[in-house]
Amino acid sequence: MHTLDQLNTMPPGEFVVALDGVFEHAPWVAEAAADQRPFGTVTALHAAMMAAVEAQSEDVSLSFLRGHPPLSPKALAEPGLTASSRAEQGGLGMSSLGEALERFEANSAAYEAKFGIPFIVCVRRQTPPFVLRGLERRLANTPEQERAAALAEIGHITRLRLVDRVTGQGMPKISGHLSAHVLDTARGKAAEGIRMQLFREGVLILEAITNHDGRSDAPLLSGEPLRIGRYELRFHVEDYYAGWPNVTDPPWYDVIPIRFGVSDPEGHYHIPLLLGSWTYTTYRGS
Amino acid sequence: MHTLDQLNTMPPGEFVVALDGVFEHAPWVAEAAADQRPFGTVTALHAAMMAAVEAQSEDVSLSFLRGHPPLSPKALAEPGLTASSRAEQGGLGMSSLGEALERFEANSAAYEAKFGIPFIVCVRRQTPPFVLRGLERRLANTPEQERAAALAEIGHITRLRLVDRVTGQGMPKISGHLSAHVLDTARGKAAEGIRMQLFREGVLILEAITNHDGRSDAPLLSGEPLRIGRYELRFHVEDYYAGWPNVTDPPWYDVIPIRFGVSDPEGHYHIPLLLGSWTYTTYRGS
Amino acid sequence: MHTLDQLNTMPPGEFVVALDGVFEHAPWVAEAAADQRPFGTVTALHAAMMAAVEAQSEDVSLSFLRGHPPLSPKALAEPGLTASSRAEQGGLGMSSLGEALERFEANSAAYEAKFGIPFIVCVRRQTPPFVLRGLERRLANTPEQERAAALAEIGHITRLRLVDRVTGQGMPKISGHLSAHVLDTARGKAAEGIRMQLFREGVLILEAITNHDGRSDAPLLSGEPLRIGRYELRFHVEDYYAGWPNVTDPPWYDVIPIRFGVSDPEGHYHIPLLLGSWTYTTYRGS
Amino acid sequence: MHTLDQLNTMPPGEFVVALDGVFEHAPWVAEAAADQRPFGTVTALHAAMMAAVEAQSEDVSLSFLRGHPPLSPKALAEPGLTASSRAEQGGLGMSSLGEALERFEANSAAYEAKFGIPFIVCVRRQTPPFVLRGLERRLANTPEQERAAALAEIGHITRLRLVDRVTGQGMPKISGHLSAHVLDTARGKAAEGIRMQLFREGVLILEAITNHDGRSDAPLLSGEPLRIGRYELRFHVEDYYAGWPNVTDPPWYDVIPIRFGVSDPEGHYHIPLLLGSWTYTTYRGS
Repeated sequence: MHTLDQLNTMPPGEFVVALDGVFEHAPWVAEAAADQRPFGTVTALHAAMMAAVEAQSEDVSLSFLRGHPPLSPKALAEPGLTASSRAEQGGLGMSSLGEALERFEANSAAYEAKFGIPFIVCVRRQTPPFVLRGLERRLANTPEQERAAALAEIGHITRLRLVDRVTGQGMPKISGHLSAHVLDTARGKAAEGIRMQLFREGVLILEAITNHDGRSDAPLLSGEPLRIGRYELRFHVEDYYAGWPNVTDPPWYDVIPIRFGVSDPEGHYHIPLLLGSWTYTTYRGS
Repeated sequence: MHTLDQLNTMPPGEFVVALDGVFEHAPWVAEAAADQRPFGTVTALHAAMMAAVEAQSEDVSLSFLRGHPPLSPKALAEPGLTASSRAEQGGLGMSSLGEALERFEANSAAYEAKFGIPFIVCVRRQTPPFVLRGLERRLANTPEQERAAALAEIGHITRLRLVDRVTGQGMPKISGHLSAHVLDTARGKAAEGIRMQLFREGVLILEAITNHDGRSDAPLLSGEPLRIGRYELRFHVEDYYAGWPNVTDPPWYDVIPIRFGVSDPEGHYHIPLLLGSWTYTTYRGS
Repeated sequence: MHTLDQLNTMPPGEFVVALDGVFEHAPWVAEAAADQRPFGTVTALHAAMMAAVEAQSEDVSLSFLRGHPPLSPKALAEPGLTASSRAEQGGLGMSSLGEALERFEANSAAYEAKFGIPFIVCVRRQTPPFVLRGLERRLANTPEQERAAALAEIGHITRLRLVDRVTGQGMPKISGHLSAHVLDTARGKAAEGIRMQLFREGVLILEAITNHDGRSDAPLLSGEPLRIGRYELRFHVEDYYAGWPNVTDPPWYDVIPIRFGVSDPEGHYHIPLLLGSWTYTTYRGS
Repeated sequence: MHTLDQLNTMPPGEFVVALDGVFEHAPWVAEAAADQRPFGTVTALHAAMMAAVEAQSEDVSLSFLRGHPPLSPKALAEPGLTASSRAEQGGLGMSSLGEALERFEANSAAYEAKFGIPFIVCVRRQTPPFVLRGLERRLANTPEQERAAALAEIGHITRLRLVDRVTGQGMPKISGHLSAHVLDTARGKAAEGIRMQLFREGVLILEAITNHDGRSDAPLLSGEPLRIGRYELRFHVEDYYAGWPNVTDPPWYDVIPIRFGVSDPEGHYHIPLLLGSWTYTTYRGS
């Protein structure tokens, strides 16, 4: 971890070493940026590095893109993979695709055959079904559109890697936010003690309990990109209205599932639940 | 009151007398329709009479339109007014416009000066502010647009008058419907015993109490056109949650006013109130 | 199938044969009722039969209860089971309990050991998890409480069997009702073309599409008891707001699941969904 | 205006002068508190002054209460009224009671006849109708209950007066909070540009426009007690959905009035409006 100040003042060679691997197998990106120091913000540093990539001829650009590892569970087993790529792909968990994984592999091969580059996507911003969907959509692109799409993903990948290496002024926005709030509209106060379970693409990723303010003590998700995909938040209210007038057995509501889609990994998402004993309302909150 | 069968079979002269006044000062309309009998529906009879009007030359048509009385509180006092016109204008109550009545009279004069006909509107489908608004909008019309607009209003006026005179198959749709429903979402059942007050353009026009089904025993409005205008339905809930947990003094909600606009006099309007102790939801119901 | 009139007038012997099996292995019940004919309603006939059972001494009553088959997947394979019992137990599907089935069998044996009668429950009003829950609760009863509980279930079982055999005036209430309604509060009209899937205890039991009135063409469930248990209705809205302002990809809502509990098999349940593009509200409707 | 530090360290005589009038015509209250200095918080100072009052014998206590001016529009014209009382009563505006003012005067006389003290209430926490209602309720008290009630009001009055004079650590809580929020659930974002009008007991007290965050730039009310009474917040949405699909003329909603009761002058009140084009929801927010 370096500070932006350190990066701004160290010798060029050290600078290149410090940023090694932010751009995969491409030390020339950091070399180009070294000359433009000092940078006022980390965002400006990232922009300068991206500009160095975009300034290349088509040939160099393709060669750079070709230097990226394929996205595949098999690739995880190969020795040449960088540590960053290994961690990123491991966190994604493509093998959860199950049978669709074969479809992904086939489309991936078709992609490489068509465009001459591996399929590149910032996996830290994705869930596996949306990686697959993105691949299938991008297969229809022209080579020109696709080079632009791949570079945009390089931008996302490297922004995240840079934030892992550098602290300082003007950090790029890389994190989303997900929170929830339960209001008891039958009692006129925040609903405390309700267990929440958050699922992403069918996988339970965390649990929390509402506090006296009707919220989880910490945001449900924050500090990193929200993976594009479908989420479900389940509110366990089975005991919440025990003893309330007219409560039935089983209760009218026991678990309230709210499914929602995350389309913006850096977005702010808030899930309010206005809970009455025989009704509820939810909406995209702010 | 005649049946359609009677009208279909009576001598032409009697037919014309029976429909006297449906079209103001224009027995020739009924005469033209008499030849086309029998009519299968009352709607078809009305359509034939309107067709007879529309078939006239511009001159005759203007002369027919000129035969209508001006819409004005003063006109109510004049001896030449037909009983139908007197009743229709009396039910509208233009004098409730207060100071705006002068503006109406001035615009009405400007209208007559511009178009050479009195301002004609089916007052049974209107509230006074919307009569005034309609006049001001129609003042901007071309003479051609305006003759069409006046004839459309003649259609509305005569449809209502015909329905007052004839019963039979295929009655034209002339009535709207307004109802309300209160559901107690805190107790999970219909809310009984809630007093409702209905205001139209600020004037209280009726009161009702919700029954054990959460509705008024009869529709709030039905059997006639709903006058175009702004309505307010007030639900008196001040005592409804007495004794409920956390009830405050004064209660959080005492009167719940819901304002809504009626744009379609023959439309179906339903006002649901989902009432919790600390929340409510309303929507245009179906 | 007989009419009540036929049952009222046939010779006693035929009457007993006609009602054979309504009360399991107990022709004496019909014999006792035969003497009290004619019955004005099917409900009265059933009440008379139940009264005959309840009039018995404790010994006869226990012996009658002992005549019922055990509730168990194994019992389904045994030759002595009546056709009614076979159909009823088959429709319940206790084997869906999976691992909990062993717990059920063990508790069932404990029940029989404690009370000297098989565990009797009207399975047509139940889902397997609630059969198990009911067994575990009833195990804690005193013998007296339990004999009353078993007789109450006999009442439910035989009421349903009687309705399968007899038509006529005053049929007992044996059926519940489940319906749904989707209102598009962003467009101000019923939401058409939305696919609904109904799950009961995790099992998909039917699908339907909302019509132009926002409802399924027929009630989702009707004509029979609603099995006590937990239900989930899923509304597939993924394409409903395509092209709407600000729609995201994936959309904010794709599937809206509403989970609810049915506690009253003969009850009326209505699930409204007030659907906006970024909000929804549901409640127990009426 | 003094700081708490200044009050803690000034000579006793100055201290009494500085707090002159906080307790009406009762310098002995400040004298008693002077001996207990220093106070760590303004709340503690107030508590000490109240304790001095409560420590008095019944006779002195009554004599102290008798020293308070009557609450009455007429009293405003009398020369003996302190500036504080004049400002407080002036801000209340009892004359807005109209015809009910006579009832107030009569009950006020009955109160003084029964209890031998003027009717004392902290008018800065009240609206006129609730002052009247409070008077009528308190008339039914026993003298003992009523002395306690009057002293509680003295506590409220003097707490507010003290806060006007002193700043420092541990200020007593004297202010409530009222805010509103409009969320556009049809577009999925905060609703900007909506004019809000706030009425208290039928009187317009302020207007505000929602900003890009759907809120007024400043809280609607804050920094002082919210007067106990009935409020109405009107949201002017007539133009908000212009151009939206299916918008009618007049629009379905033009003004959305929300009436609510304030029972706790120091409470936090939040009025959310979840606004769709054909629905809205409100609740007591947090």
